[in-house]
Amino acid sequence: MSTFRVELKKIVDDSYDIEIGYGLETKLINDIKFGIAGNIQKFAIITDSIVKDLYAERIMQLLIQSGMQADLFVFEAGEKSKTRRTKEEIEDAMLEKGYRRDCCILAVGGGVVTDLAGFVAGTYGRGVPFINYATTLLAAADASVGGKTAVDTPLATNLIGLFHQPKKVYLDIAAWKTLPPRQIASGLAETIKHACLANRDFFDYLNVHIADLKTFDKAVCEHIAEENCRIKYSVVMKDERESGLREILNLGHTVGRAIETVSDYRLLHGEALAIGMAAEVNLAHELGFMTKQERDMVIDLLQKADLPTSIPSYIDRNVLVQKLYTDKKVKNGKLRFVVQKGIGDIVEYENGVFAIPIDESTARKIIMTMS
Amino acid sequence: MSTFRVELKKIVDDSYDIEIGYGLETKLINDIKFGIAGNIQKFAIITDSIVKDLYAERIMQLLIQSGMQADLFVFEAGEKSKTRRTKEEIEDAMLEKGYRRDCCILAVGGGVVTDLAGFVAGTYGRGVPFINYATTLLAAADASVGGKTAVDTPLATNLIGLFHQPKKVYLDIAAWKTLPPRQIASGLAETIKHACLANRDFFDYLNVHIADLKTFDKAVCEHIAEENCRIKYSVVMKDERESGLREILNLGHTVGRAIETVSDYRLLHGEALAIGMAAEVNLAHELGFMTKQERDMVIDLLQKADLPTSIPSYIDRNVLVQKLYTDKKVKNGKLRFVVQKGIGDIVEYENGVFAIPIDESTARKIIMTMS
Repeated sequence: MSTFRVELKKIVDDSYDIEIGYGLETKLINDIKFGIAGNIQKFAIITDSIVKDLYAERIMQLLIQSGMQADLFVFEAGEKSKTRRTKEEIEDAMLEKGYRRDCCILAVGGGVVTDLAGFVAGTYGRGVPFINYATTLLAAADASVGGKTAVDTPLATNLIGLFHQPKKVYLDIAAWKTLPPRQIASGLAETIKHACLANRDFFDYLNVHIADLKTFDKAVCEHIAEENCRIKYSVVMKDERESGLREILNLGHTVGRAIETVSDYRLLHGEALAIGMAAEVNLAHELGFMTKQERDMVIDLLQKADLPTSIPSYIDRNVLVQKLYTDKKVKNGKLRFVVQKGIGDIVEYENGVFAIPIDESTARKIIMTMS
Repeated sequence: MSTFRVELKKIVDDSYDIEIGYGLETKLINDIKFGIAGNIQKFAIITDSIVKDLYAERIMQLLIQSGMQADLFVFEAGEKSKTRRTKEEIEDAMLEKGYRRDCCILAVGGGVVTDLAGFVAGTYGRGVPFINYATTLLAAADASVGGKTAVDTPLATNLIGLFHQPKKVYLDIAAWKTLPPRQIASGLAETIKHACLANRDFFDYLNVHIADLKTFDKAVCEHIAEENCRIKYSVVMKDERESGLREILNLGHTVGRAIETVSDYRLLHGEALAIGMAAEVNLAHELGFMTKQERDMVIDLLQKADLPTSIPSYIDRNVLVQKLYTDKKVKNGKLRFVVQKGIGDIVEYENGVFAIPIDESTARKIIMTMS
C-alpha cells in the first residue's frame, strides 16, 4: 500500500465589476473589444422569448458589427423554463452551431436567464467565461452578486447548479421601464428582503421612495440597484461557499420557495418570496424577535410594493407544509428558518448558525393562521 | 453610471491523497470515520450494474455497519450510460431518497462511474464532496488525477462537465482481477499513452513487464498505478485548467475520441485510444518527429497489450474524418493534433502550445492509408 499526494493549493481571483447605469449596450461592446472576456471572438447570447426582441437581438447586431461571431439561443420566458431540459437544448444548439471551448456566454435578461446561462457556462467544455447583462430589478437584487447558478427540478428549486462567477455584470436600469408592473414588484421583494436583513436605513428609504421607483426616477433606481449589490456583497464576501452567514440571504425563502413550487410557478419568484417574508415576520413575532409594529411595517411595505402577503386560496396549506420538508436547507430532518431581529438584523441562533430549527407544529400554526 | 467592484480573490486548497493498494475497503471506511469527507453521515454510492455486486454493495454494508446512512444509485454499465439523462436520473433518485447538501458522493467503479459521479457531485446542491473508489486500471491511469468530470452528448464526448476535485481516491488493485481482459487492455492504452508522452524508461518497463501485469503481479501493478499517477500529476500540476501543457494528455485522443463516437461505443475508450495512438504515431512519422523504428515500437507495444491498432472495417473513414471537426479541441476551424517526439516526449509547436494545426488533406491521408 502506498499513498500519492496531489497538491492543489492555489490563489483564485474571480473578482469582477458590476456596471450600473442607463442603456449600457455600447459600454458592453466596448468592454468586449477591450478584452473583458479575454481574446474571444464567439459569443453565445442566451436570452428568453421576451427579452430577445427588446435587447438581445440588438446586442447581437452590435457584436456582429464589431466583427464578432454571435448567435442567439432563445428559450420560452418564465421560471418554468429553468430546467435541465432547457439547459440540454441550449447545449445541443450551441454544439450544432460549432461552439466549442473558445466561446463566451452572454446572458441577456432577468434572473432566470442569468441563473440558467451561468449554469450552461459553468459546464460547457468544463467551464467557459460568461457575462451577465441584467435587465430586471430582480436580477439586480439577486443575480448580480454571489456566483450562484442553478436550475429547478420537479422535487426542488435551485438544487442542481454550481458556483460560477461572471466576468462582468451590467445592470441596465433603462430596461426596467420595459418590465410589466408584476415584474417590478417581484424584484422589490428581494430588495425589501435585503433591507430587512441588513439595513434599517435602506428599509426607511424604500418606505419613502417606493413611488419614485414606480415612475423610474433615475437616482432612486440607481441607489436601489447599488444598495442591493452592497448588501448582498457584504454577506457573500464573508462567506462565498454558503456555509454559515450566507444562510441569512434565505430570509423568507424557506416558505417562499415551497409556495413557488406548490403554486406550479403561477406566482413569480418575488411574489412567492413576499408571502414567505410575511410568514417569516409572523414567525419572528411569534418567537418574540419582532414587535407587532415592526411586523406590520414589513407587511405594509410589501403591500405598498404591490406584493401579495397572504396565501392564495388555490394553495393547499397542508401540501405547503409537507413541501417544506424537501427544501435543501433541511438538515437531519429538521426544518430551519432564518428569522429577522427587528428590522435590519438577523437572529444568530448559535455561533455562526443563523437558521433556527422550528418544529413542525409551530411552522404549521404559522401557515394555517396566516391571512 | 457607477461601478461596483466585487473582490473575490482567495486561496483554494483542493489537495488530496491517492491510496494505492490491495483491498482498500477497510481503509476507506476508517478514513470516512476519521472525517476524510468532513462531518458527513450520508453517503450516496454511485456505481454501475457490474461493480454493484462486486464491490459497491459490500462497501454500502460496511458503511451502514459503521452507523452511516448509505444508498446505492446504480446505472447500466458502459460508456453509453455517461449521459445527461443518467445524471438526471441519479439526481432525481437522490432527491427522492431525501439526499440534500449534507451528503457525500462515493463513486465505486471505473472511469465512467468516476466521471459521471464526480459531475453529479459537482452540481448537486451546487457541489457536495465526493470520494473515488476506483476499480479499474483505466480509472487509475486516467480518472485519479485532474479533477475532470463529464458526460457525453450525441455531438461530442466529454464536452459537458466541470472540474471538481475528490476528497480522496482509492486505487484498489485487487479489483483489477475481476476485470475482463478487454478492460485491462483498455486501461493499458492510457498507460502506454502516458509512457509515450513523458517517460521512455516507463515505456521500456511496460515492454518488459506487460505479461506480469496480465497475471496481476502485485509489485508490477502497483508500480504501473503509481507511475500513471506521477506522470499525469506532473502534467496537470503545471496546468490545472488545461490551457496549454495539459493538452499533451490528449495524445492519441483527437482520432481516438472521434472513432469512439463513430463506432457508437462498440469500441471501449482504451481501444479507440489505441487506434488513435496508432494514427498519431503514423502522423508523427509522416511529419518527421519519429523514426520508422520508434513508430513500430509503439504499435508493437499496443499489440502486445492486446489492443487494436487498425481501423475496424465497420467504420466509415470518411465519416471519421468529418467527425474530427466536432472535437472540442478544434480552434478557429483548424484541426489540431498533439504529436510525440520519439518516445517519451512531445513536440512543442510554439511557446506553450503543444497541438499542431494539421490541414485536412494530411489528416485524411493518415486515416485513409492506415491498416
